[in-house]
Amino acid sequence: MKKAEDQEKIRQLIRTAMAARKNAYAPYSGFRVGAALETEDGTVYTGANVENASYSATVCAERNAVFHAAACGERRFRAIAIVGGAEEEPRHACSPCGVCRQVLREFCSPKEMRVILARGPEEWREMTLEELLPESFGPENLQVKR
Amino acid sequence: MKKAEDQEKIRQLIRTAMAARKNAYAPYSGFRVGAALETEDGTVYTGANVENASYSATVCAERNAVFHAAACGERRFRAIAIVGGAEEEPRHACSPCGVCRQVLREFCSPKEMRVILARGPEEWREMTLEELLPESFGPENLQVKR
Amino acid sequence: MKKAEDQEKIRQLIRTAMAARKNAYAPYSGFRVGAALETEDGTVYTGANVENASYSATVCAERNAVFHAAACGERRFRAIAIVGGAEEEPRHACSPCGVCRQVLREFCSPKEMRVILARGPEEWREMTLEELLPESFGPENLQVKR
Amino acid sequence: MKKAEDQEKIRQLIRTAMAARKNAYAPYSGFRVGAALETEDGTVYTGANVENASYSATVCAERNAVFHAAACGERRFRAIAIVGGAEEEPRHACSPCGVCRQVLREFCSPKEMRVILARGPEEWREMTLEELLPESFGPENLQVKR
Repeated sequence: MKKAEDQEKIRQLIRTAMAARKNAYAPYSGFRVGAALETEDGTVYTGANVENASYSATVCAERNAVFHAAACGERRFRAIAIVGGAEEEPRHACSPCGVCRQVLREFCSPKEMRVILARGPEEWREMTLEELLPESFGPENLQVKR
Repeated sequence: MKKAEDQEKIRQLIRTAMAARKNAYAPYSGFRVGAALETEDGTVYTGANVENASYSATVCAERNAVFHAAACGERRFRAIAIVGGAEEEPRHACSPCGVCRQVLREFCSPKEMRVILARGPEEWREMTLEELLPESFGPENLQVKR
Repeated sequence: MKKAEDQEKIRQLIRTAMAARKNAYAPYSGFRVGAALETEDGTVYTGANVENASYSATVCAERNAVFHAAACGERRFRAIAIVGGAEEEPRHACSPCGVCRQVLREFCSPKEMRVILARGPEEWREMTLEELLPESFGPENLQVKR
Repeated sequence: MKKAEDQEKIRQLIRTAMAARKNAYAPYSGFRVGAALETEDGTVYTGANVENASYSATVCAERNAVFHAAACGERRFRAIAIVGGAEEEPRHACSPCGVCRQVLREFCSPKEMRVILARGPEEWREMTLEELLPESFGPENLQVKR
């Protein structure tokens, strides 16, 4: 894919995450996050954070997107865009928490999975899942030892 | 609604949960669950369980459906059908775990929410969320005390 | 055990939970909970809630006590006292969330496990785990089907 | 501290984690993990993994140690040793999952927190939390935006 074309696809993924963020349910933290997840064949699934009065029953936007996609039969992903923050217009790129990195790990190639930390469609950083969760604990750790 | 009509709607919700169950990702437990969640205005969302090599990062089918529906902007539900078990054709009605009951609690009226524990479209039990999670801890517990 | 003796043991368990509550780490909710868990042979373990900036990585007081006791080799419990609330002196008895009921379920006989919801050593209600988590999903659900 | 003295302290922390591992409750995965956590003033707390029939209600060894230490009033840690695996004598160093990295993050300086991935008291690797969870989401992310 040409670079300009790739950049436009990233911008579109960020816009989709921004739209998803509008449905965040965050009455306790006020911190609202949206995510857009692309499968290896180009389908896009979205998620937003959904909190709970018992905080540990909360789900983040990134995980919500992965869980929904997996329940639709998807098993391999290649990119996720994340936008979030406390203000209406986020100024800080929101990094995924460790729990979400672990959930992504189950279905992604760490070295190839692209994680887009975005403030908006014109301002983002890109990292791999390997960079965000090095030396990860994954399915092969359990399988090797079974 | 007439009783026959209501029963047919329940059967349809169970069939939807059974279809959702096909996408369960349960390589560690082999226990596969599907859920179909109906909003107060009749829209249906589905979920399946999605496990993780680090077990605590797993999501159940019921929660997956609630999280996805909430990320689509839904905030009020009236019924959920659940089918699950280790075998291809479940013989035991699968009861929701405590975590899922807690997640349902955030968005449901405990006394009105219908939880359908099903083995198939012709065999099910119905309980309210109040019956499954009495004396629950919910949003008002935090709000009252703030 | 005579009734008066039993009541004094409950009061002592509540006092232990109140002391444990002082160490709660709840910077996000301001809701502070303590728990005291008694094993079948009378040993008492304590817990407090410990929150996390990523809300879902939070642990409640009740679960914290169970997890610590289990890591000390305990496997069977008979009573837990819970005190909590937003104010310095709780006025509302704090009910365990669904997640904690699920964790207790792993190690308790639902019909015999006593759950003490306390405002203080002179004011409490007692319920069984069975009453708080009827029709529960537990170890035998997985084992039966394996 | 002299290097030899430091190495002996690490070995002792690993031995403590190995002892803690004996109480792991892992009937579903068969994967048993122990952890030993050292506070900034040198006190050591331990943890083991505790699983649940509803997998998501599971706790890992590392988190169990942090949660218990926090409930004892501890707020700052400087090192954690982790040993684990499916076999009686682990041959693979067990890396902490993303959830545990997130829980450590709440109470540790990422650049200074030492994480010891050990196969035994004579064979280990050391990483910082920053190396294991770069670009982390922590308390300041929520506080900045409040």
